[in-house]
Amino acid sequence: MKKAIVLGASRGIGKAISDSLKKLELDVISASRKDIDTSDLESVNKFADQNNSTDILVLNTGGPPIIEFDKITNEDWNRYHNQLFVGFCTLLQKIKVNDGGYIFVITSNVIKEPNSKLIISSAYRSAFSSVFKILSKEFAKSDVSLINIAPGPINTDRTRELVDDVVEYANSLPMKRLGEPEEIGNFVSAVIEKEIKYLSGVVINFDGSNSNFIF
Amino acid sequence: MKKAIVLGASRGIGKAISDSLKKLELDVISASRKDIDTSDLESVNKFADQNNSTDILVLNTGGPPIIEFDKITNEDWNRYHNQLFVGFCTLLQKIKVNDGGYIFVITSNVIKEPNSKLIISSAYRSAFSSVFKILSKEFAKSDVSLINIAPGPINTDRTRELVDDVVEYANSLPMKRLGEPEEIGNFVSAVIEKEIKYLSGVVINFDGSNSNFIF
Amino acid sequence: MKKAIVLGASRGIGKAISDSLKKLELDVISASRKDIDTSDLESVNKFADQNNSTDILVLNTGGPPIIEFDKITNEDWNRYHNQLFVGFCTLLQKIKVNDGGYIFVITSNVIKEPNSKLIISSAYRSAFSSVFKILSKEFAKSDVSLINIAPGPINTDRTRELVDDVVEYANSLPMKRLGEPEEIGNFVSAVIEKEIKYLSGVVINFDGSNSNFIF
Amino acid sequence: MKKAIVLGASRGIGKAISDSLKKLELDVISASRKDIDTSDLESVNKFADQNNSTDILVLNTGGPPIIEFDKITNEDWNRYHNQLFVGFCTLLQKIKVNDGGYIFVITSNVIKEPNSKLIISSAYRSAFSSVFKILSKEFAKSDVSLINIAPGPINTDRTRELVDDVVEYANSLPMKRLGEPEEIGNFVSAVIEKEIKYLSGVVINFDGSNSNFIF
Repeated sequence: MKKAIVLGASRGIGKAISDSLKKLELDVISASRKDIDTSDLESVNKFADQNNSTDILVLNTGGPPIIEFDKITNEDWNRYHNQLFVGFCTLLQKIKVNDGGYIFVITSNVIKEPNSKLIISSAYRSAFSSVFKILSKEFAKSDVSLINIAPGPINTDRTRELVDDVVEYANSLPMKRLGEPEEIGNFVSAVIEKEIKYLSGVVINFDGSNSNFIF
Repeated sequence: MKKAIVLGASRGIGKAISDSLKKLELDVISASRKDIDTSDLESVNKFADQNNSTDILVLNTGGPPIIEFDKITNEDWNRYHNQLFVGFCTLLQKIKVNDGGYIFVITSNVIKEPNSKLIISSAYRSAFSSVFKILSKEFAKSDVSLINIAPGPINTDRTRELVDDVVEYANSLPMKRLGEPEEIGNFVSAVIEKEIKYLSGVVINFDGSNSNFIF
Repeated sequence: MKKAIVLGASRGIGKAISDSLKKLELDVISASRKDIDTSDLESVNKFADQNNSTDILVLNTGGPPIIEFDKITNEDWNRYHNQLFVGFCTLLQKIKVNDGGYIFVITSNVIKEPNSKLIISSAYRSAFSSVFKILSKEFAKSDVSLINIAPGPINTDRTRELVDDVVEYANSLPMKRLGEPEEIGNFVSAVIEKEIKYLSGVVINFDGSNSNFIF
Repeated sequence: MKKAIVLGASRGIGKAISDSLKKLELDVISASRKDIDTSDLESVNKFADQNNSTDILVLNTGGPPIIEFDKITNEDWNRYHNQLFVGFCTLLQKIKVNDGGYIFVITSNVIKEPNSKLIISSAYRSAFSSVFKILSKEFAKSDVSLINIAPGPINTDRTRELVDDVVEYANSLPMKRLGEPEEIGNFVSAVIEKEIKYLSGVVINFDGSNSNFIF
């Protein structure tokens, strides 16, 4: 049976992806923060040693807190550099993704439209998206598809943290609602189930028509 | 039973989408060029009169010939302006897409990386993508999702026309192969089957990691 | 003396560019709508016959009216297709730009962030930007630089038409003001004066930090 | 007299900018790597203490070496994270840029088209570009313009390092030559001299029509 590893799988989008993949014939490893803390490289290395190959890998982690630019310290930069960037790179260096596999990363719409509230996230998710795009060309040789999903306003604890009045916010959106984590979960599992391999190297906005940039 | 209209459905990507949708519980109208010629606005209007509502609409049409910039005439501009732009706009003005529906357009990677061989296509597919993005926000109010699929090198008659040595070309690609129309067909049907509505306003590269632009 | 042709030079951004170029040692032809109406291809051809070569060409034209998508007619599409797209293409086919020259086009920020009020403009300015990018590679061979300037909110009659309360609008902008046409005029003349040739194939936002897209 | 600080000013693009600014009435501080090593945060802090305000700030630093993804170590990530990202952020936190000033950053075309040879540069220059875009909106309030220049193939030691046969490479480019550092230097000084303030929040490709992405 093919194997899937989903990070940040205890809640939100990660959980929805994990739940959706469990409906396929897959051995799904749903990792929570106690299994791997991507801000702690020791934890990352240990996880990679224990899970050194897979068919499907879903890179996903919580977002950093809101900090004003002037108040971000070196410690903050380094911590979230690890959590959002180095940890993921290390996993890609250490975990073998089998031929014909998939790697997904869940980033954010801030990689296209950076957000003053989410400076740290905008920066490091952009950095990782850049590496991910480059690697997509390498992995293509072994038929591994790399897909970057960039969610907008999704109905998660995170969004409820960031927004004062969720009902009002939802009403201001083009679809008059937040996206559901299950929509992303079902999307990921559908791509895998239908073996849509040529969808690779792509960044997919998942924001209910909310972004303004043409692409 | 819900209804789907697929244009350009006699071959290539259009046929693959049509074939894939037929596996769902849908009444699929597979329109070929004899049913509607989008370069002929009379034909477009007649088609829209006969098919004035649907749940799913797939806008798709063949590409224009290769013409050097200096040799493109007013007649060429006007013909392909109709075929790739005004025809589609007219259909969106005249065909009612029911609440909760989907509109797909099949464009091309040239909307992001315009191509000197494909000047006409680059221009008008960009123009339509711009209108499509704007409309995605309007249609969101009635829960209609608009999805722009921008294929790269797909295994169609069109690609075989544009490329001298297809085998050599395929080998030069990151995945060492062209994409299969069925991958796009299955993608479209999966999005519909799984009711992934929040995927709207998006442009999805479908090019096997071939493009170089980060997004 | 080198020659410059500026279209739409009777007011707004075109006038500012024309005024700024006149301070250089250039023979500046400031064309107004009575000299060339780009929506009328006969007028375009006549102008190109009379002005069949230049060193600097500035493509610039007024914007179309605000029309809701559902109310745009074939006549509208065709008229503005000519004004914003075919007219400019025809000039590029017919007017010889001398080696070492410059071609500027003044488009709009709507080419990156299309606007529901400005559907026609978003569409055809995108189409032309696509052709312009392609041609920049051709013209590079004869050291002609093509520069696409995409203004945001500039202090012109046009902006005053589009916005209800200009003072309030200006205050809502990052710089708390509209851009001045002279800033664009001075920019264009500086690039020419300093012979900055490697700036080619570029789209330059000119919007006082107003747009949200990362690029 | 107004003050300008240029980093990486001992050679290449930094030197050209410094030389060009010296022709204006400006007190130009041309910092070389012995004055500030942006990979060493102690050095960065010391520099910022000694130069705690300016009117013009040009952020510029050498590129990291070519390292294959699998061979990049934590030490590499951390070193270039400092050099290309944290060092610049720290300067923006500590150096006061006076009202009406300018901040330029010299990045690279890899922020739009990431390059497998330049993984580290692609990642961290993207990250910084994201922060820079966000800050451009903040700085707009005090009329400070932030301009990101993304050079392509420029005639520097760096390019000669990266390319095997420079003559052949230059011939393969649209303009059949590399860009000259002086073109960027003159561009920067022209924007300052002409007080073009509304050019802010922008990323300007400087690549002689070499990139393929439409924007």
